[in-house]
Amino acid sequence: MAGSALVHAAVFAAGALVGGGVAAAVASRKREFPHAAQNSQVSAIKSPIIEVGPGGNAQISTVASSGGVIAPPLRYGNPGPIADPLVRKAYVAAYDRRLRHPAWTAEHLTLASLGKSAVSPPPEGGELVDRQKSTFTEDASLPAAFRSKLSDYFRSGYDRGHMVPAADAKFSQEAMNETFLLSNIAPQVGDGFNRHYWAYLEDWCRRLTSSFADVYVFTVPLYLPQLHPDGKWRVTHEVIGSPPNVSVPTHFAKVVLTSRPASPSTPDILELSSGAFVLPNAVIPDGAPLESFIMDIGQVEKAAGLTFLSDELKAASKHICKTTKCEVIVRRFDDARKRPEMRRAISSPK
Amino acid sequence: MAGSALVHAAVFAAGALVGGGVAAAVASRKREFPHAAQNSQVSAIKSPIIEVGPGGNAQISTVASSGGVIAPPLRYGNPGPIADPLVRKAYVAAYDRRLRHPAWTAEHLTLASLGKSAVSPPPEGGELVDRQKSTFTEDASLPAAFRSKLSDYFRSGYDRGHMVPAADAKFSQEAMNETFLLSNIAPQVGDGFNRHYWAYLEDWCRRLTSSFADVYVFTVPLYLPQLHPDGKWRVTHEVIGSPPNVSVPTHFAKVVLTSRPASPSTPDILELSSGAFVLPNAVIPDGAPLESFIMDIGQVEKAAGLTFLSDELKAASKHICKTTKCEVIVRRFDDARKRPEMRRAISSPK
Repeated sequence: MAGSALVHAAVFAAGALVGGGVAAAVASRKREFPHAAQNSQVSAIKSPIIEVGPGGNAQISTVASSGGVIAPPLRYGNPGPIADPLVRKAYVAAYDRRLRHPAWTAEHLTLASLGKSAVSPPPEGGELVDRQKSTFTEDASLPAAFRSKLSDYFRSGYDRGHMVPAADAKFSQEAMNETFLLSNIAPQVGDGFNRHYWAYLEDWCRRLTSSFADVYVFTVPLYLPQLHPDGKWRVTHEVIGSPPNVSVPTHFAKVVLTSRPASPSTPDILELSSGAFVLPNAVIPDGAPLESFIMDIGQVEKAAGLTFLSDELKAASKHICKTTKCEVIVRRFDDARKRPEMRRAISSPK
Repeated sequence: MAGSALVHAAVFAAGALVGGGVAAAVASRKREFPHAAQNSQVSAIKSPIIEVGPGGNAQISTVASSGGVIAPPLRYGNPGPIADPLVRKAYVAAYDRRLRHPAWTAEHLTLASLGKSAVSPPPEGGELVDRQKSTFTEDASLPAAFRSKLSDYFRSGYDRGHMVPAADAKFSQEAMNETFLLSNIAPQVGDGFNRHYWAYLEDWCRRLTSSFADVYVFTVPLYLPQLHPDGKWRVTHEVIGSPPNVSVPTHFAKVVLTSRPASPSTPDILELSSGAFVLPNAVIPDGAPLESFIMDIGQVEKAAGLTFLSDELKAASKHICKTTKCEVIVRRFDDARKRPEMRRAISSPK
């Protein structure tokens, strides 16, 4: 039947622009679009997707639509979401289907979430949460065609870099395991970046919880243009995998917002701090000052096409480097690894 | 007040992941996220956005949330949608906020929509629809920070290339005007591409309506990697504007699906055809065969991170070049322009 390309009409199911859910909706055959469609943004475009029956036949239903905006240009197919929203135990994120890494991740860190609070609960089941129990895993919640795969990273020369660090999800093994889903991973330079300066920055973000009650962290892969001698700006980035699948960001940003009571007597009056750091996906010397990577949050937002904080919130917050010390602690994990007796004491970020 | 960075708590409003709408929702202060959040995709993540009051103060409300998923990591801000869905008279589209051009556009072409049917209505108001009455316009429905601007294209060396062609929206001046919104525009090489081979392809798509009852066209900017001598695949693309804002796609694709009754006696039994053409954003000789740009639809989907047609539909359709002639008609509009008496007779695509 498929070979004859004769399709007996079609039963349609609607796929919303966002998410993988399929809602029931059926298209009518009316060609009213050009004059009936709305000249405005809609929150979601529903559209029919053809369904071929068991015999290979499909029927165009004449039953009227049962809700949702059916845009006639999408009657046979809908390009679908650009990004998949992901809600995990330790983070929320959006996965970019084209670049095959997160568009952004967001976390809320506290002493309690890091298991450092006196009143924090012990890890689930009382067992020690251990990154050695976690393994990098392809994210089956994404369509196979758009998933990043273990084979894409294999022998790519890049580390599987966590956007949400495993160490931020120590409150349960399951939460930590979720940070090893490839939908939370982007290709990072290993030596001198993922295993060093980037890890120092992640550690600095965690240490903010000792100074601030609440720490919010956005992690954002970026593609920044460079000025060339001909006066033109160009973005150049590698794509790894065979066939090439996963894009390698030129930079990574951390955008942080912290809050704490302005004084112990007024716990509902908050002091807010914020800041953004943009690091090249490249070897960074241990001695580089963290402050040298400061970037205006609005500039990061423009580069990413995202909005992290409202203008009011940006204006209402001090720069994080004014309310705490912006200084990383250098930890040469790999040097420790070379000494066998240290291997279990300090595990390297991967 | 802003300077002191003391924020008196906060009244939150929720912004959905998709669309610009602000729904009423208020966050509680509970820090229950790590254990309460769902380990799954959600169709939309709602989050609070801080609202600073008239006096510059903001209050953290203790009123419980009134609906919607509030993800605690997004309590102070939400990165927002990656793409804006757009519904216009002649097309639907998604605008990419980072690249600042459409991620895709979709159209439904018929003899009637092109004003070529005997039974088609005359243009609205009876006046002639004329592209000279349309002007390129920044799309005010997009946030200012993510809009592509007229100044980005000015002296960029690139044409403002229509994704949905103006000539596909001749049924009303308003529909045509909408094709001139910069949210429907991407930077294209002018001579030899936008004004020539790409215009021939657009014309070929329109001419499909004389052979097929329904013609569906997706237009898709692409960023394709090239193999370098070092064995690595890299994407390199320009970014125009000052500061650099609008990315210049390396390629553009048209994905078409057509349907027509298999025979006049069985109007509900359809013959489907489909195909994809991928053209480099570069000078293409007039003599290049259209068939030399054929690409597998699934490959275009993988490169774009989008789904145009279900696997069943791909399997159920013949290749378009088997059901009609894949051959463009060469029209040297610019040669005509050089002769003043022809200027009004033939207007060049821009």
